Amino acid sequence: MNNLLFGYLDKERLETLRNKFSEMNVVDIAQMFEEIPEEKKLIIFRILPKDIAAEVFSYMSQKEQQFIIESITDKEVQSLIEDLYLDDTVDFIEELPANVVKKVLRNTDEQTRKTINHFLNYPENSAGSIMTIEYVNLHKEMTIKQAIARIKEIGVDRETIDTCYVTSKGRKLEGVILLRQLILSEEEEVIENIMDKDLKYVHTHDDQEKAASLFKKYDLITMPVTDNENRLVGIITVDDILDIIEEETTEDFQKMAAMEPSEEEYLETSVFSLAKHRIVWLLVLMISATFTGNIIKRYEDVLQTVVILTAFIPMLMDTGGNAGSQSSTLIIRGLALGEIKPKDWVKVVFKELRVSLLVGITLAVVNFGRIYFLEKVDFYVSLTVCITLFCTVIIAKAVGGLLPIVAKKLKVDPAIMASPLITTIVDALVLVLYFATATVLLGI
Amino acid sequence: MNNLLFGYLDKERLETLRNKFSEMNVVDIAQMFEEIPEEKKLIIFRILPKDIAAEVFSYMSQKEQQFIIESITDKEVQSLIEDLYLDDTVDFIEELPANVVKKVLRNTDEQTRKTINHFLNYPENSAGSIMTIEYVNLHKEMTIKQAIARIKEIGVDRETIDTCYVTSKGRKLEGVILLRQLILSEEEEVIENIMDKDLKYVHTHDDQEKAASLFKKYDLITMPVTDNENRLVGIITVDDILDIIEEETTEDFQKMAAMEPSEEEYLETSVFSLAKHRIVWLLVLMISATFTGNIIKRYEDVLQTVVILTAFIPMLMDTGGNAGSQSSTLIIRGLALGEIKPKDWVKVVFKELRVSLLVGITLAVVNFGRIYFLEKVDFYVSLTVCITLFCTVIIAKAVGGLLPIVAKKLKVDPAIMASPLITTIVDALVLVLYFATATVLLGI
Repeated sequence: MNNLLFGYLDKERLETLRNKFSEMNVVDIAQMFEEIPEEKKLIIFRILPKDIAAEVFSYMSQKEQQFIIESITDKEVQSLIEDLYLDDTVDFIEELPANVVKKVLRNTDEQTRKTINHFLNYPENSAGSIMTIEYVNLHKEMTIKQAIARIKEIGVDRETIDTCYVTSKGRKLEGVILLRQLILSEEEEVIENIMDKDLKYVHTHDDQEKAASLFKKYDLITMPVTDNENRLVGIITVDDILDIIEEETTEDFQKMAAMEPSEEEYLETSVFSLAKHRIVWLLVLMISATFTGNIIKRYEDVLQTVVILTAFIPMLMDTGGNAGSQSSTLIIRGLALGEIKPKDWVKVVFKELRVSLLVGITLAVVNFGRIYFLEKVDFYVSLTVCITLFCTVIIAKAVGGLLPIVAKKLKVDPAIMASPLITTIVDALVLVLYFATATVLLGI
Repeated sequence: MNNLLFGYLDKERLETLRNKFSEMNVVDIAQMFEEIPEEKKLIIFRILPKDIAAEVFSYMSQKEQQFIIESITDKEVQSLIEDLYLDDTVDFIEELPANVVKKVLRNTDEQTRKTINHFLNYPENSAGSIMTIEYVNLHKEMTIKQAIARIKEIGVDRETIDTCYVTSKGRKLEGVILLRQLILSEEEEVIENIMDKDLKYVHTHDDQEKAASLFKKYDLITMPVTDNENRLVGIITVDDILDIIEEETTEDFQKMAAMEPSEEEYLETSVFSLAKHRIVWLLVLMISATFTGNIIKRYEDVLQTVVILTAFIPMLMDTGGNAGSQSSTLIIRGLALGEIKPKDWVKVVFKELRVSLLVGITLAVVNFGRIYFLEKVDFYVSLTVCITLFCTVIIAKAVGGLLPIVAKKLKVDPAIMASPLITTIVDALVLVLYFATATVLLGI
């Protein structure tokens, strides 16, 4: 498909190309730009039908957007910004270097410039920073007929008209009405009588995660955003929420693997930046692991008496880490989805205790069978290993289940209480236990 | 709020309660049922306004749904099923015990029963299993006026009318048209001329993840589902996609923490089932860790000569595991989001190599400073530890970066190549390296 299009470009059949574009999906066209040789990008962008150029632009990667803005004339910038939805303009301005931002702002009218600046001032990850202002608002006194007339008049420029918000004097948010309700109702009906008053909304300064969880809970397509005086100032659409859920989850994955979160795609991230995001936690955990080392040093004499004990250290440490991170992962995810609340901590601990009894006994029995009967390890050494193993599972699951909840209570992101940190903590506990058991059972 | 509602119930002011309900969000009402004492649930369900009862039911937890179905009369079941959207009916039937399913199927007409059975036969996690059949389809020869008339006629029963699908003879899918386009166009225009022909769709047997990624890429609200002959058979809506993304991510989290995935909420899952999902991987990893133990056994003499070497084993193992799972997590997530493709493996390895050089040198230098200068460990022992540490980071990041891609190539879920498995593999490699270095440098 793309080869065919590039063929038209080579043969300068620009009119054909233009017609092809008008039948294509804008996301696909934007993706195509990645593959177009640099010297042709501008020609192609210029032959895009005017009604889709801005939309294609909004789906381009940041690199492409910057290239286009730097290459086109001031007048073209002006018309592009006019056609873009405001939230898309704000999105790409946030990523641009200062000189390119200047070129954009120089070519927007004062009103737009003001609004853009207002948007750029919303805190990162707030509802205000992701909302759009291209929505339809209706007055509650309108009849259906008047409402439809208004939608026909202003609807073309709005990001969505499937959901319309109803306001009273001073833009106070009063209710919501769906386009489908308008279509399916009698023309003379007044909006106030059929609108839905129990609407879900967020404030501009609420966290975007709050918005995302309302979308999920109530199956919403759009949601209104209000200011402190309950005035309607914008709407959030579900496609942006999908992106946010993806971002937040990626952030959790990164934190849970002991990295500082980054929003960049892996292949686009520089080696230096990747290293920077990983190194701090590795250092912290490396130094914490010396505590574990110190425990071993304290018990050097035990190890020198029964050298075989060393051979089971990796298995005990790994099992402790794995058992602990199973629990912490479930709890972290449960907290993130709101399925588990901090007040459930007693339930969680009791549940983990019962699970770890089952799991611990199974592992200890299997392991005893293996090392005592198959590997012919001394009975008391086998016993030491298996008692430690059993207790390891219990401790690991209690620590793994409890720490994420404690973090949440302390308003720290529970995601950092994941595998790496849990492993380090559990390692130390396991070794103390191991040597204590060995000292008693083996009489060292 | 709820207390107030319960107050009405106690005072038998059912009419007031009923009016309150009609102003409330159905999701909130469904959630309220969890708190209502069992003996009152049925009374409350019966006073729900008829037009919202089915919707409230569709948002209830499975336990509540089963209770309602078991308690109401056959006739009530019949009217409930009639009001439910088919995908919701299928959803709750899938979870019910056989005797309750019978009660439901007994009370549906033959046509619905057939359709339900058809749905239940779609493979789990296929597009067919999550679609709904309550959509609006228009014929391409219709004028806008005719289309709107048709929507007014059938729209009330449809899950969404914001997006309508255009078919030709034999229900062949031809295009898509938005309600907003209908509203904003001239009445006499023919649909074929304004519909969008470049539409994105899935087949009934495609994986639901394919549907989810198309929704994300193209910012869709609904998507049509076709059968093998390109006939329109249903639609998928974005609210179901949100649930699927959440489910699939939870599954990834669980696999990455060495658990078999489960769709149940943590607090709803039985202890036995939790233990069952965790124990297999723990056993596998525990037994794999014995390889690491065997390596230590083979080098017992080295350890007995220089006992201090044992003290650094936890630090080396933990750092290896952490460095490896940082890489594997980024790659697993990148593969899941489609940002990284298996063909990028050379780029990934080269990038990880450079990152691990930076990270490895930093960790080794810091560690050397700490143990040689602060802890006054012997120079050659310090050197052994730090050379091993440096190589550990390089090996861990190469293994962590590569294995998820290998898994993807072999059509295994990359998510299992996460922290636990990577840790076990890297542990063994690290120890071999450690003892080899020690043997050479310390001349043992």
